[in-house]
Amino acid sequence: MKTVSRIDLLRKSIGQARSAGKSIGFVPTMGFLHDGHYSLIDRARRDNGLVVVSIFVNPMQFGPSEDLAAYPRNLPGDSSGCMKHGTDLLFLPQEDAVYPKGFSTSVEVSGISETLCGKSRPGHFRGVATVVLKLFNLVQPDRAYFGLKDFQQFLVISRMVRDLDLNLEVIGCPTVREPDGLARSSRNVYLTPEQRRESCRISKALFQARDDVKKGEAQAINIKAMIEKHITLIPDSRIDYISICDADSLEELEKIDRRAVVLVACHVGKARLIDNILLNP
Amino acid sequence: MKTVSRIDLLRKSIGQARSAGKSIGFVPTMGFLHDGHYSLIDRARRDNGLVVVSIFVNPMQFGPSEDLAAYPRNLPGDSSGCMKHGTDLLFLPQEDAVYPKGFSTSVEVSGISETLCGKSRPGHFRGVATVVLKLFNLVQPDRAYFGLKDFQQFLVISRMVRDLDLNLEVIGCPTVREPDGLARSSRNVYLTPEQRRESCRISKALFQARDDVKKGEAQAINIKAMIEKHITLIPDSRIDYISICDADSLEELEKIDRRAVVLVACHVGKARLIDNILLNP
Repeated sequence: MKTVSRIDLLRKSIGQARSAGKSIGFVPTMGFLHDGHYSLIDRARRDNGLVVVSIFVNPMQFGPSEDLAAYPRNLPGDSSGCMKHGTDLLFLPQEDAVYPKGFSTSVEVSGISETLCGKSRPGHFRGVATVVLKLFNLVQPDRAYFGLKDFQQFLVISRMVRDLDLNLEVIGCPTVREPDGLARSSRNVYLTPEQRRESCRISKALFQARDDVKKGEAQAINIKAMIEKHITLIPDSRIDYISICDADSLEELEKIDRRAVVLVACHVGKARLIDNILLNP
Repeated sequence: MKTVSRIDLLRKSIGQARSAGKSIGFVPTMGFLHDGHYSLIDRARRDNGLVVVSIFVNPMQFGPSEDLAAYPRNLPGDSSGCMKHGTDLLFLPQEDAVYPKGFSTSVEVSGISETLCGKSRPGHFRGVATVVLKLFNLVQPDRAYFGLKDFQQFLVISRMVRDLDLNLEVIGCPTVREPDGLARSSRNVYLTPEQRRESCRISKALFQARDDVKKGEAQAINIKAMIEKHITLIPDSRIDYISICDADSLEELEKIDRRAVVLVACHVGKARLIDNILLNP
């Protein structure tokens, strides 16, 4: 595995792989890697000749009152994990190379960026779309891999790639969960042991929602009430949103009469946790 | 010369040229080509193995009260002009392929987009940046050519290319002028014969400004007053702005103590004309 920070060296390595006829698979991350990330790297490894992973905690996607400074980091662990999972090229850009003096360009995906997490975190998806577009332009992958845990992010990036005619495939990979069902997230480390134990109620409620729909429940309001009841039992929890949406447009649904997704965001102690599950997939 | 409308066929032709080791020069236009455009194509021809010209009247960069419907078109003339000037590939995308159903992504360059023409034409540079980025992603040029007549557009695109890490060179080419000095523009056809005759006062005032600065004039206010006096003499004219700016940041200057540019926009009858000249270049 080669580790590069400089953009010119990245471009050189990518160019060499291209010349050798290798396809390029790319996994952009903010580090503090867990099995969710590694599942993306494994998939990229299976699909491509060259696997590139980036680690960059992107300040542009954090709000002023969010956890940028506290965001967990573990570069030695990440690096050895990437190596173990067959990464060829680990890209660790410096902040002043990503956002040089006078930086003033941003990418906005309207509509699907403005609801759900976009409402709670204004500017978040603009920051995500901008940095991901920059990374795509640097790495020029054939395929890029994102976890479906961040379902709205996956939709925003997929739309951006289509709208901007980027010549690459965006691949969404299933959420990886802890044995008790909690979605893997770098932010789970913020949880106290008790909060951690109780947070499995989020995913349990989502599984229940899927089962209820399978059994014929079609009223979003009933599903949401059931989920709310479960999450309220988690100590120190505060619900941000519980939403049932069209799985393509994120349009809020009253009746579950098409491909739909139920999405949850809630604060548990110091952590803001998100999760989702497809209904009638 | 090959003419293509379909994006997949464009990508195929581009891919073949790339495989053959050709560098790609790109001239994006809105058609109704004149010697200004042809000077860009000539330059692209000198610099590159493959020359791509696009013609697309981009609705996203026109305001609701602007001249989109009236914008002049002459595809047969453009096509034979492109051929004469050595174009290899003429790309004529269809509007619904550029902006498919659900299109919702835009690119914004803050700061330098918001002043001058950005103030008079809100959303204009967002439309320009977005379509140019899309065209860059489709054509993947090594070099792209823009006329310096649209000085602010040149700065916006250069900044976008840097900020988004696009791997291409943006080349600004000198304004091409009519024998009497009027900057070549597709919009000059809107002028009546008398307006056309008198419109040379714009460039004459700019040349005068350059001479005055050369002779020691350093106060922007004096230069602007001189230009205003000239332009006011054009019949049916209405000044939009006369501005003297830092040539990199477009910051308005009171004192001409660095690389500066004087920019003018004015309505003459039905036409909105722009022109500019570098001072102390």
